Amino acid sequence: MRLVVVGAAGRMGRMLIKAIAATEGCTLSAAIERPGSEALGQDAGVLAGLPANGVLVSDDALAAFVEAEGVLDFTAPDATVAFAGLAAQARIVHVVGTTGMEPSHLARLEAASRHAAIIRSGNMSLGVNLLAGLVRKVAATLGTDWDIEIVEMHHRMKVDAPSGTAVLLGEAAAEGRAVPLAEHRVASRDGQVGARPPGAIGFAALRGGTVVGDHKVIFAGAGERLELSHVAEDRSLFAQGAVKAALWGRGRKPGLYAMTDVLGLDNL
Amino acid sequence: MRLVVVGAAGRMGRMLIKAIAATEGCTLSAAIERPGSEALGQDAGVLAGLPANGVLVSDDALAAFVEAEGVLDFTAPDATVAFAGLAAQARIVHVVGTTGMEPSHLARLEAASRHAAIIRSGNMSLGVNLLAGLVRKVAATLGTDWDIEIVEMHHRMKVDAPSGTAVLLGEAAAEGRAVPLAEHRVASRDGQVGARPPGAIGFAALRGGTVVGDHKVIFAGAGERLELSHVAEDRSLFAQGAVKAALWGRGRKPGLYAMTDVLGLDNL
Amino acid sequence: MRLVVVGAAGRMGRMLIKAIAATEGCTLSAAIERPGSEALGQDAGVLAGLPANGVLVSDDALAAFVEAEGVLDFTAPDATVAFAGLAAQARIVHVVGTTGMEPSHLARLEAASRHAAIIRSGNMSLGVNLLAGLVRKVAATLGTDWDIEIVEMHHRMKVDAPSGTAVLLGEAAAEGRAVPLAEHRVASRDGQVGARPPGAIGFAALRGGTVVGDHKVIFAGAGERLELSHVAEDRSLFAQGAVKAALWGRGRKPGLYAMTDVLGLDNL
Amino acid sequence: MRLVVVGAAGRMGRMLIKAIAATEGCTLSAAIERPGSEALGQDAGVLAGLPANGVLVSDDALAAFVEAEGVLDFTAPDATVAFAGLAAQARIVHVVGTTGMEPSHLARLEAASRHAAIIRSGNMSLGVNLLAGLVRKVAATLGTDWDIEIVEMHHRMKVDAPSGTAVLLGEAAAEGRAVPLAEHRVASRDGQVGARPPGAIGFAALRGGTVVGDHKVIFAGAGERLELSHVAEDRSLFAQGAVKAALWGRGRKPGLYAMTDVLGLDNL
Repeated sequence: MRLVVVGAAGRMGRMLIKAIAATEGCTLSAAIERPGSEALGQDAGVLAGLPANGVLVSDDALAAFVEAEGVLDFTAPDATVAFAGLAAQARIVHVVGTTGMEPSHLARLEAASRHAAIIRSGNMSLGVNLLAGLVRKVAATLGTDWDIEIVEMHHRMKVDAPSGTAVLLGEAAAEGRAVPLAEHRVASRDGQVGARPPGAIGFAALRGGTVVGDHKVIFAGAGERLELSHVAEDRSLFAQGAVKAALWGRGRKPGLYAMTDVLGLDNL
Repeated sequence: MRLVVVGAAGRMGRMLIKAIAATEGCTLSAAIERPGSEALGQDAGVLAGLPANGVLVSDDALAAFVEAEGVLDFTAPDATVAFAGLAAQARIVHVVGTTGMEPSHLARLEAASRHAAIIRSGNMSLGVNLLAGLVRKVAATLGTDWDIEIVEMHHRMKVDAPSGTAVLLGEAAAEGRAVPLAEHRVASRDGQVGARPPGAIGFAALRGGTVVGDHKVIFAGAGERLELSHVAEDRSLFAQGAVKAALWGRGRKPGLYAMTDVLGLDNL
Repeated sequence: MRLVVVGAAGRMGRMLIKAIAATEGCTLSAAIERPGSEALGQDAGVLAGLPANGVLVSDDALAAFVEAEGVLDFTAPDATVAFAGLAAQARIVHVVGTTGMEPSHLARLEAASRHAAIIRSGNMSLGVNLLAGLVRKVAATLGTDWDIEIVEMHHRMKVDAPSGTAVLLGEAAAEGRAVPLAEHRVASRDGQVGARPPGAIGFAALRGGTVVGDHKVIFAGAGERLELSHVAEDRSLFAQGAVKAALWGRGRKPGLYAMTDVLGLDNL
Repeated sequence: MRLVVVGAAGRMGRMLIKAIAATEGCTLSAAIERPGSEALGQDAGVLAGLPANGVLVSDDALAAFVEAEGVLDFTAPDATVAFAGLAAQARIVHVVGTTGMEPSHLARLEAASRHAAIIRSGNMSLGVNLLAGLVRKVAATLGTDWDIEIVEMHHRMKVDAPSGTAVLLGEAAAEGRAVPLAEHRVASRDGQVGARPPGAIGFAALRGGTVVGDHKVIFAGAGERLELSHVAEDRSLFAQGAVKAALWGRGRKPGLYAMTDVLGLDNL
């Protein structure tokens, strides 16, 4: 499968280039950066810490898309919306790992998905998507007698909190309880905050060092706790998940898909 | 519901007496110890650290059973088999939390269950029984590419390893993979043990201090891990579960039931 | 040693009554509650879930103090300051586990300690006091290249955050780095908070169920983490620590002491 | 500093090549493999997943050593002893991360260290060496009332158990208690093992997936636990530690040094 990487010079972009190189049956057909980037013209393999592969970084996304079968995109919301338009034009699979999307961005992805397959997830790993399914089920089984807390830790450079994955897990918990997350979300405690509100779903974000991503969902009952955790050891995990999503999407009819579709976790 | 506690002077026996006292709709109708026990004739309430309740510890189990509706039993395999016979005669609910039962003991419980409801589990907590359901499902979803390890910690006085609950979780994992646990169980590693055998289900038992019971099931994949844990904060949890099981069993037709029946977790 | 418990009908008060009953060489000489409390006149043993001990709850603190050798106090800042005055008058040991004290309260404890021994700590357990010593040392050894995060979990009824113990650990970390905690404290993260400020000491508070008190201090470096944790399994721990502090304080010359003095952890 | 990597084609060898490339002031002067290795003649950079660096893998260790200032060695005990002889001849720094050394191997390292600086450790990370110092101190402070358990997890390919680092931590605990580890070591529990022997130091080894290396030392007392953990996120940590050790050893007088010397952790 011929794949384009957009945001090729970024941390995730370079991971994606490596993941494609390591996957049988996939080749990097183009590496895209924004106009003006210092990476333009450089060899994408060398950029990723691999031997040179002859693919030079370019800023012509459309030309790249029409020659490819899929595009891997962990950029930013506005860029992703623009790429979705081009991917729809080129009728190629668009794998979106971009986080921080607003409803307006999502509406435009939805529109683009009428013309091409889009697979979008806040986390591309098998483990996290499976965990979300477990959290939904446990939250549905246990009443609100069991308090839910979600704690995550990421490296010191992460700028937003809680993580997209923590939000995804919180949404799974809220779905299990059949309540809207927004009405039960408690994302910080400092000072005389009073006793815990019944039904609250609490979040805590730790930051430090180089932690790739740890998430824990705690169900705390009377005298016992159930704790469901995920540890991401290696950022390449997410890149591998994206490549897997692209391969799954090849030949798939247009539509907006989730990672749970790719992983066959729907009827957990 | 009128309940008898057998092994009334032991650690769990005293917990059971407290749990009955704390449960609306339940009364302690008798407290049984083996002939020769120093506790015979003592007040069962005082023994449990409560105000006196007028129930004196006795060794006449049958007389006690015929006046009761249920019996709570965390004793030892041979004693439990004998109590099962008496409970069957008296047609009362028999809640069995005894561990270390051999197939021969189980056969005799099975026989007794033709005459009365028996509810038996290696762990009476909601959390552990729910955890076992999750472990079964995750083991079935993930292939043997994901390695399974089960680690538990209990107080320094515990004499057997791994714990009955760890075995229960290991059996759930093996069921999920549709393999017999006995063929894949690895319960210790010391020395030049070689690489991990594919499909192994590993156990490790930690002992120390006064830990009530911690269990963790680790699914370790390539670059990520999923960890499902249970923490028992308080031994009274198991006593409360036993009382709940007795209440559920009242009026139930004869048969051998599991805690998952009591908790309605069957079709997780 | 003859000991008074103030706040005798509260959760900690009842724990203290039990701890005294369980300690060889100690007796409960009085149990005090505030005027108007429903507990006045009740038997303190029964209140604590023990057999009756003939000590009836009273509101006459001074009369009780002059007949005793020590007082155990986990009440509230204003009450504690008043009790300190009475204890100084009676020249008895005052063990203070009260949290949330302001500098003005502390100044008055200081004054009272000229007349009697006062032992005060945010946490009476050996483990936490030892942990604080380790945290100070590790923070001093590692530069600010290693980020410090402190996460704690307590039961759902706890009204303040972070816990007094978490603050104690944060102060130990700040001392190790020779910086004031107030200038580096980050106690919540929610939204686009930006990258972690260098030198920050982060706090996160989880609440749920019946957790007695878990604390973890994380030192996160490049590619590795050091995590120092304390788990309190049982609230009676703190009551036992208070009794131990009273015994240590008997015959001690007037002054304000810390739990590290009691435990001999000073020169860790 | 001109450095040789021995065992250059192995997993750690390739890590060491990368770490040297990433460290200012260091260059790879040679890459050595055993005679007959398929890697002979290959470019060491490419082997490590980097751009070619013109250093071809060779089997002539002595020729390489005389042109270098140090050698990094994570091979096997017999090979390490042989390299120590050559490094002594060449008077270059020998950094040894090899595990599983017997007393006879250590005696020969000792002998070689009369002629050149040798730095040897079971773990080259700052975190683990600091942790060992904490464990020694805590074990010395707490009596044997607090039980010690050491649990570690590594990837599924690891062939020995417990890990060299777990043994290093167990030795620190035993030193703290001033007892020989061999007499108190309990490395597996399976079956009716009886209550925990007083003074035991327990080990448990978990294996699975791709875990780089997690270690936890648990001190379990009555009602509380202190847990000291280290998480290695990235194998490159150990390679970086080895390079740091080599730089520290340059110009150092002959002798056998530990990583705690390099890190200045001696008087913790």
